[in-house]
Amino acid sequence: MLANDRLIRAIFRQKLDRTPVWMMRQAGRYLPEYREVRKKAGDFLSLCKNPELACQVTLQPIERFPLDAAIIFSDILTIPDAFGLDLQFVEGEGPCFNNPIRTSQAITSLPHIIPELELAYVMDAIRMAKQALGNKLPLIGFAGSPWTLACYMIEGSTSKNFNEIKRFLYRDPVLLHQLLSHLSHATTDYLNAQIAAGVDVLMIFDTWGGLLSRSHYLEFSLRYMQEIIQGLKPAEKKQKVPVILFTKNSGLHLEEISRTACDAIGLDWMTDLREARQKVGNRVALQGNLDPAALYAEPDIIKQSVKRILEEFGQGSGHIFNLGHGISPDVDPSHVAVMIEAVHEWSPAYHR
Amino acid sequence: MLANDRLIRAIFRQKLDRTPVWMMRQAGRYLPEYREVRKKAGDFLSLCKNPELACQVTLQPIERFPLDAAIIFSDILTIPDAFGLDLQFVEGEGPCFNNPIRTSQAITSLPHIIPELELAYVMDAIRMAKQALGNKLPLIGFAGSPWTLACYMIEGSTSKNFNEIKRFLYRDPVLLHQLLSHLSHATTDYLNAQIAAGVDVLMIFDTWGGLLSRSHYLEFSLRYMQEIIQGLKPAEKKQKVPVILFTKNSGLHLEEISRTACDAIGLDWMTDLREARQKVGNRVALQGNLDPAALYAEPDIIKQSVKRILEEFGQGSGHIFNLGHGISPDVDPSHVAVMIEAVHEWSPAYHR
Repeated sequence: MLANDRLIRAIFRQKLDRTPVWMMRQAGRYLPEYREVRKKAGDFLSLCKNPELACQVTLQPIERFPLDAAIIFSDILTIPDAFGLDLQFVEGEGPCFNNPIRTSQAITSLPHIIPELELAYVMDAIRMAKQALGNKLPLIGFAGSPWTLACYMIEGSTSKNFNEIKRFLYRDPVLLHQLLSHLSHATTDYLNAQIAAGVDVLMIFDTWGGLLSRSHYLEFSLRYMQEIIQGLKPAEKKQKVPVILFTKNSGLHLEEISRTACDAIGLDWMTDLREARQKVGNRVALQGNLDPAALYAEPDIIKQSVKRILEEFGQGSGHIFNLGHGISPDVDPSHVAVMIEAVHEWSPAYHR
Repeated sequence: MLANDRLIRAIFRQKLDRTPVWMMRQAGRYLPEYREVRKKAGDFLSLCKNPELACQVTLQPIERFPLDAAIIFSDILTIPDAFGLDLQFVEGEGPCFNNPIRTSQAITSLPHIIPELELAYVMDAIRMAKQALGNKLPLIGFAGSPWTLACYMIEGSTSKNFNEIKRFLYRDPVLLHQLLSHLSHATTDYLNAQIAAGVDVLMIFDTWGGLLSRSHYLEFSLRYMQEIIQGLKPAEKKQKVPVILFTKNSGLHLEEISRTACDAIGLDWMTDLREARQKVGNRVALQGNLDPAALYAEPDIIKQSVKRILEEFGQGSGHIFNLGHGISPDVDPSHVAVMIEAVHEWSPAYHR
């Protein structure tokens, strides 16, 4: 049993004293103590692959702020890296694969990975973080969506329009489905390994599902996330681990997302929280959705922005306060404190 | 009177024989004849600033394909360039201002421009294109939205998140409104000059309005586009020039957009056309919204994709077939022909 189970209770729409709060990328570059550890580790990927240091940075934000969850420090591209695509992070340019997918043969010969072995560094970091957390707070595990992983694997790096995978989708959908299916199985195994290692909640990040038309989103992205969720198994003698599903720019598809087996939907800041709640009804909880740029504002404006988000969701449980996207590296940590304080101060009024 | 007035009739939801079709960026790099002229002109901006050559490339797509409109070849950033920000196009990197906005003084001292003088090259190209077109086809003029222009002016170039202007929005909204208001006045004058030079239809491109939350979109982007439309004056003894408003990633705000004074809404490919039509009712026409990547597909798939778009809009006038974004430079022109033929072949069934 967790001492602070607000996140879990909010996901299952159970009665609460106040709205739980955490932030996407809360263990990150905006924290000076993170930058210190990162310097020690070398590059970003070396930090992900060092369980001691990954555990250390996972705990940093919860040591500094009264947050309601920790999220394991890692990256969504660990799976393709384990496939042998050789991930690299070029400073200021984002992720890059030295061996991107360039032939159909590269897809049909993708290896089957055993996450407990090839991605042992993630499970080790999770076990360490769980031990350090004790029963204080929930630990969130995560993975990228098959579609989003495929975007990077085929493009080789980030891209404005991801034209390569779009071309592939229109020219060889059968082979693309084969790739997505392979990724879906690997991700299911990966998340089950994270469950076995002790995570309390899971999140699937679909950064690029919003590039797709409605019908393609359902066929090439949402379907595989649904398959993953259906393949998750609770750890022995434990409850089901709930899943938060986040597709950026998916405000038009919330009803469809809420009808998958997910337990909560992460919302970007472009989506009106009031309308979103109307669309999903009582089927799922909602997480979000402060504009990350609001943290650039002066404290008074930050407080007002928090208040507006709480007011948009309205009365009752089922809301997890978060940003609508990862926190920017150039945010002043004292502004984060203001945001969290405002959630603590204003949200109890919505739980009476 | 135009011999082919399908575009105008569709905008005003008048009876038609078939759905009109044109493409965003139809005069562009996917055409070998465009690349020839571009080579002659030097860089992209030199081509925009040479009225003879700009007119020539404007006409290229309508000489090759049976399209229902020409759009003047130009760029959305001509206004900030005329302000003295010194626009430059770096090959493969997009637009860049050598003198971006860096201080509040740079905003308060922005000059008042007279488009007929400082942007005479655009009006000259319009007059030449109108003369060449005769009364065959309508000519579309355009401008960028104030918000989108401000994004580039403050960031200095394109950007992943446009954090600079977002920071500005949260820290000094009053000064940002001053900038947007200045841009709004300049754009109104610019579009009125285009009307006087002879354009038949206008389009406002709001590439980055989709980065904003609903309330910010209404306050910082849509409001200024509305002001521009309200400031437009028909040329002497001529009818009102209709306006198509295109905000990328605005599928969540269609109802609000349809309640401005615009005559048609341009839709990106992520928006379901059937749902969009339900949301806007009979207030405006809809333009779009084939995924530009669909043109990578084999002819059969292109035809099916066209058919699906026509079916989604359904029976009746009020639909202008287009892509959901500009055509990609690496598309095979013969695939464009397939798309246009399919609109000609299949759309009459929706106008009985």
